[in-house]
Amino acid sequence: MSAPIFPLDQWYVAGFAWEVQDKPIARTFLNQPVVLFRSGDSVVALEDKCAHRHLPLSCGTLEPTGIRCGYHGLLFGGTGQCLEIPGQANIPKNACVRAYTVEVVNQIVWIWMGSTPESKPTQPPPAHPWHDDPAYEFKGDVFHYKAPYQLIHDNLLDLSHLGYVHMRTIGGNAQIHMNAEMTVETGPDSVRVVRHMKDCAPPPTYLEAWPFTGNIDRWQEIEFRVTYFEIWTGGMDVGSGALTDPERPGFHMRGFHGITPETETSSFYFWSVSSNKNAERPNNREAIYKATAFTFDEDRAVIEAQHGNMLRFPDAPMVGIHVDAAPNRARRIIAKLTSASAGA
Amino acid sequence: MSAPIFPLDQWYVAGFAWEVQDKPIARTFLNQPVVLFRSGDSVVALEDKCAHRHLPLSCGTLEPTGIRCGYHGLLFGGTGQCLEIPGQANIPKNACVRAYTVEVVNQIVWIWMGSTPESKPTQPPPAHPWHDDPAYEFKGDVFHYKAPYQLIHDNLLDLSHLGYVHMRTIGGNAQIHMNAEMTVETGPDSVRVVRHMKDCAPPPTYLEAWPFTGNIDRWQEIEFRVTYFEIWTGGMDVGSGALTDPERPGFHMRGFHGITPETETSSFYFWSVSSNKNAERPNNREAIYKATAFTFDEDRAVIEAQHGNMLRFPDAPMVGIHVDAAPNRARRIIAKLTSASAGA
Amino acid sequence: MSAPIFPLDQWYVAGFAWEVQDKPIARTFLNQPVVLFRSGDSVVALEDKCAHRHLPLSCGTLEPTGIRCGYHGLLFGGTGQCLEIPGQANIPKNACVRAYTVEVVNQIVWIWMGSTPESKPTQPPPAHPWHDDPAYEFKGDVFHYKAPYQLIHDNLLDLSHLGYVHMRTIGGNAQIHMNAEMTVETGPDSVRVVRHMKDCAPPPTYLEAWPFTGNIDRWQEIEFRVTYFEIWTGGMDVGSGALTDPERPGFHMRGFHGITPETETSSFYFWSVSSNKNAERPNNREAIYKATAFTFDEDRAVIEAQHGNMLRFPDAPMVGIHVDAAPNRARRIIAKLTSASAGA
Repeated sequence: MSAPIFPLDQWYVAGFAWEVQDKPIARTFLNQPVVLFRSGDSVVALEDKCAHRHLPLSCGTLEPTGIRCGYHGLLFGGTGQCLEIPGQANIPKNACVRAYTVEVVNQIVWIWMGSTPESKPTQPPPAHPWHDDPAYEFKGDVFHYKAPYQLIHDNLLDLSHLGYVHMRTIGGNAQIHMNAEMTVETGPDSVRVVRHMKDCAPPPTYLEAWPFTGNIDRWQEIEFRVTYFEIWTGGMDVGSGALTDPERPGFHMRGFHGITPETETSSFYFWSVSSNKNAERPNNREAIYKATAFTFDEDRAVIEAQHGNMLRFPDAPMVGIHVDAAPNRARRIIAKLTSASAGA
Repeated sequence: MSAPIFPLDQWYVAGFAWEVQDKPIARTFLNQPVVLFRSGDSVVALEDKCAHRHLPLSCGTLEPTGIRCGYHGLLFGGTGQCLEIPGQANIPKNACVRAYTVEVVNQIVWIWMGSTPESKPTQPPPAHPWHDDPAYEFKGDVFHYKAPYQLIHDNLLDLSHLGYVHMRTIGGNAQIHMNAEMTVETGPDSVRVVRHMKDCAPPPTYLEAWPFTGNIDRWQEIEFRVTYFEIWTGGMDVGSGALTDPERPGFHMRGFHGITPETETSSFYFWSVSSNKNAERPNNREAIYKATAFTFDEDRAVIEAQHGNMLRFPDAPMVGIHVDAAPNRARRIIAKLTSASAGA
Repeated sequence: MSAPIFPLDQWYVAGFAWEVQDKPIARTFLNQPVVLFRSGDSVVALEDKCAHRHLPLSCGTLEPTGIRCGYHGLLFGGTGQCLEIPGQANIPKNACVRAYTVEVVNQIVWIWMGSTPESKPTQPPPAHPWHDDPAYEFKGDVFHYKAPYQLIHDNLLDLSHLGYVHMRTIGGNAQIHMNAEMTVETGPDSVRVVRHMKDCAPPPTYLEAWPFTGNIDRWQEIEFRVTYFEIWTGGMDVGSGALTDPERPGFHMRGFHGITPETETSSFYFWSVSSNKNAERPNNREAIYKATAFTFDEDRAVIEAQHGNMLRFPDAPMVGIHVDAAPNRARRIIAKLTSASAGA
């Protein structure tokens, strides 16, 4: 096997709890085919390849004790061990498939792919409490990108693109974004970007979701956490609070962005947006979802076009500019973790 | 040329006689492009590539003496020799294309691809008399698989999959198939599998095609013959005859299955099913055709999904189980014949 | 970089002036991605790849001074230099993209790709005065071929194919074309084929476009000029003029054919047909356009099918015949110019 190009010993998002119901789900993560299914109270993830003749197990059927292959009927339990070979009493020990550790927290399904089958998580997957906070409501979706995962990191860590890519939704005036006050902090495995834009006109999505009447103070707090982002954005009436106060008033959007490589050149983007409720805008959940999905479609078009050119000119140099600071820090963290995986 | 991965000196099915009418047919067999057309009473197969500028001859038009290229009008006869170059008196000796030996028997078009242009068949192609037997009626079709031919062999030689893949048509209860009495016999270039399932409920397709009133004794006799299979299946009222009696009563389906590699990773599947007539089920020909086509579509979905996983993991080991006995024998025969072709 | 397979230091057709309006146009020429846009009175061609993160500039927006990238808003002027990096005062010198020399003559947009960025044209691009001649009217189009450009050269230099490919439009009887009087002259960078077909029935397109009442004398004068062809065809009532008289009467079609490689295996075909007006056929412009487009679609189908076979059998020999004389001369010119480019 060649050197891994993903950090392997990490919790990655595999899906949302509401997706995993009465049918197996086939997804590839980090080049490995996985079948996800519900088994009692748990979500199980197995290698999606029968030990016998390699039919994807996701073509099979769910039973109370596991998943039955749709070709010759081998039954596999949640540990990956074969429980039954129809017509044959003896079950060889190697009749098993790899099982991956899965945990569900706040309706997010996390998977530990691991650099080796023995690799186990040392801590639980992260919480995202807004999914279960009664002051908030949320909706999410799964997008697929024909582009490498790090181009999505770049995009999320540099929100100066809002003025050029997303004029119609969350962007608004480009100069506002370019002139934002910005701080970048780096932890061992995280990058945090905070941007403040004071006294500016609310962008279209904000106006639709919240009863603003004049200019607002806006914030963007972007946390990169290797396999996911939390992006807290919002705005409040000018002067109604301090942009550094965690309890500040106004309109809050808590974005969750799980970016899981499918292959070297394609990615899953699991996202949700949770926003605080407002009695004057009782239906804003659906409006915010639609605007966000539209926005991410704009990002996807740009990122896939960028990737197309990069494929054609893999060795062409890129000129660095000021907006690259935070993306470059994230790339250094990924490089460090990836070479750690390679040495594992 | 790298080592062949098909047995070359064999009769392969190229089509059915009713397909070859007033238009040329383009098909690739064993990686070689072939144009099939009717010339008088014969079916002709030529290399599908004009000797001049390589336009497929199948883009051209049929004339009484051969096929005329659709670019510059070169005319080729059934031997592959160029008969006319418009505007030029002299026809160079090398203005010819390869011609393949073709014979039509019982409405099946057989082609001899050959390891060399000199390779000629030593015996006529096999008969399939049920196509011309007045006690029977039949219908067939041509399927294309995005999968290597040997995966189709595996599938047909191991009918234990009926209970998992074909519950809705010819399968019925999975345990019946797994518990069938089975014998496997191997000849030099053949494998024969006989399975008997006594006193069981007739599956849906049988009930539609024949007026059974109770349980039946079922048989499956599968003959693998390198490039094709004959599969004789059927059932009779319990106790109405011996399962070893060639003249036994009941409902008989005589399947013909010509499996011709297109490339290393794709195949043609030429099939027909002939069944004995029954006055109480005057329209069963169409019903049997539909059920069989539906069944083979189910097989195709499984085999293509299996192949997809095999492409991704070409070196992953497969765990062997009891049902692999007959498929493994067929694979040994193909390996023997393929290395014989390579040494030719 | 491997040896070029196109002559590089040439004027190539990049489009027609009427195509380049208020939106950028993305096209690849000679393996290089180009964005074309209008800037004031000029047409500009830049490398279609932002210097920063490689998004195609054609995804951006036009401004009075240039094109602005659709990701982070970098603005590039007609020389390829970056004029603005939003939010950053200093513009690095290497923040630039390659600019190509472009000139527009008779509504044809010509581009000089060049073997090096320093390569500049030594003479203006060719004129095609019929586009601006009041006695003529014309219409053109842009076709895309999934085939290498030299297969289109071969096709245009050997009009004997008219009788087999284009029976329904400009062809007519195949024997007429094969028996045409033909002369072939070669210049240093040109091939000229003249074909005369006397006293023959006018083909369908001619009859639709011109009020012929009987047989005609036809001519075809084909000029190959490395990156484009001019093809002058037409016919006049038998005996109404000399086929060698430049001022001869009758129906004249002045074809322009710019063939620009997109990649090694795909091409742009920019074509127009200008015909002299005739009061009795006031609407023949549209009819001639439609017949020509139909004809070139026929050519494309043949050439793409030919290319498909050539891809499968890259080393298979081709048998030469009499019609190859002119195509072979053009191929020798291309080979000479291509190796000159390689040595540049």
